[in-house]
Amino acid sequence: MKKKAVVLLSGGLDSSTILAYAINKEFDIYAISFFYGQRHKFELEASKKVAQHFKVKDHKTAHIDLRVFGGSALTAEIDVPKGRTEAEMDGEIPITYVPARNTIFLSFALAYAEVIGSDDIFIGVNAVDYSGYPDCRPEYIEAYEKMANLATKSGVENENPLTIHTPLIDLKKSEIINMGLELGVDYSITSTCYDPDEYGLPCGICDSCVLRLKGFSELGIEDPAEYQP
Amino acid sequence: MKKKAVVLLSGGLDSSTILAYAINKEFDIYAISFFYGQRHKFELEASKKVAQHFKVKDHKTAHIDLRVFGGSALTAEIDVPKGRTEAEMDGEIPITYVPARNTIFLSFALAYAEVIGSDDIFIGVNAVDYSGYPDCRPEYIEAYEKMANLATKSGVENENPLTIHTPLIDLKKSEIINMGLELGVDYSITSTCYDPDEYGLPCGICDSCVLRLKGFSELGIEDPAEYQP
Repeated sequence: MKKKAVVLLSGGLDSSTILAYAINKEFDIYAISFFYGQRHKFELEASKKVAQHFKVKDHKTAHIDLRVFGGSALTAEIDVPKGRTEAEMDGEIPITYVPARNTIFLSFALAYAEVIGSDDIFIGVNAVDYSGYPDCRPEYIEAYEKMANLATKSGVENENPLTIHTPLIDLKKSEIINMGLELGVDYSITSTCYDPDEYGLPCGICDSCVLRLKGFSELGIEDPAEYQP
Repeated sequence: MKKKAVVLLSGGLDSSTILAYAINKEFDIYAISFFYGQRHKFELEASKKVAQHFKVKDHKTAHIDLRVFGGSALTAEIDVPKGRTEAEMDGEIPITYVPARNTIFLSFALAYAEVIGSDDIFIGVNAVDYSGYPDCRPEYIEAYEKMANLATKSGVENENPLTIHTPLIDLKKSEIINMGLELGVDYSITSTCYDPDEYGLPCGICDSCVLRLKGFSELGIEDPAEYQP
């Protein structure tokens, strides 16, 4: 019998790639997505397409209301920054940072893993392109894993069984895309944009789009996604 | 100006006591409660009464759907154990355990703390009466605090500012009640029962009621709450 893995699936480029990666490592996939009041709810539709494409065992969408706190351009009425170069994004913690988002997402993944009896969680965090997000750093993931193994029945009854896999953490965007293409990811159905239009088409100029387009451009190939005209 | 504290408030005996404790330590209180598909949703009404009684600065209720996973008698269609003695509860992880619940609750508290600029979270975990819950142990809380300080902007920009306060962790139920009575807690408005009736009246025989009643009985005083006839 295959081992079960919980995969945090936003439907974006990174999480779609780790889903393919986990399948390639011969896991049965239990994907989890979140509706958290984000502007870019089209990513939920993308996550469904990606989950179908890869024939996951189960795909759950948890509804959690992060708007109750406000505090981020992704959930509150704050403008998403547009037209910034990579250099301008560097170093600072951006306004698109959602307070404690990965901590909350991983906590739901942990609950899911415990219920289905999985010891493996995959998350597409990246310390290169998101150097401004504290909860994308290796030392954070390591501390989370340690905490998680003290938090659950299975962590107590077995000894530290849970692993949080972050196969993208040290990769550049172009390397992630390269990996995904080799693993059969169809990037035309993934949704990356922080601020898509009413049809779900990406803007091409928010930080997330800029990083994605640069990644494809470095590989000398065209992004198969359709952008706003 | 007073410091701000986030208090996890279920409306039960323990969390109402820590709310009073945090006020006594001269914090301004930002309480957070959760609707998570629990059977005992009367505790949310209790949490409102307790928050009002203590005139908190703000009280948020986050809606999160833990039923999406099932796996616990508190959220799924599994019977709540009744009529067990304390000895029978001892040691094992009970079916009322909600997978990763404290991890999820603390993650929301962390987000709330980051948004309002608080470095202090109070949670009423107890390692004595809930010895079967992995996420009520001191080593778990310690690991959570370490992780939390790596997860957030303020943890990165300042150095480890966040403290998770667990003033009840080593106390017996009777000691908690004693502390709460000294701090002005009105236990008649708190709601502890895992399985109250349609009027919100506690059953008196679930694990949670049994521990509560024993606590009052050890102090030689009557529980001011009204029970099912």
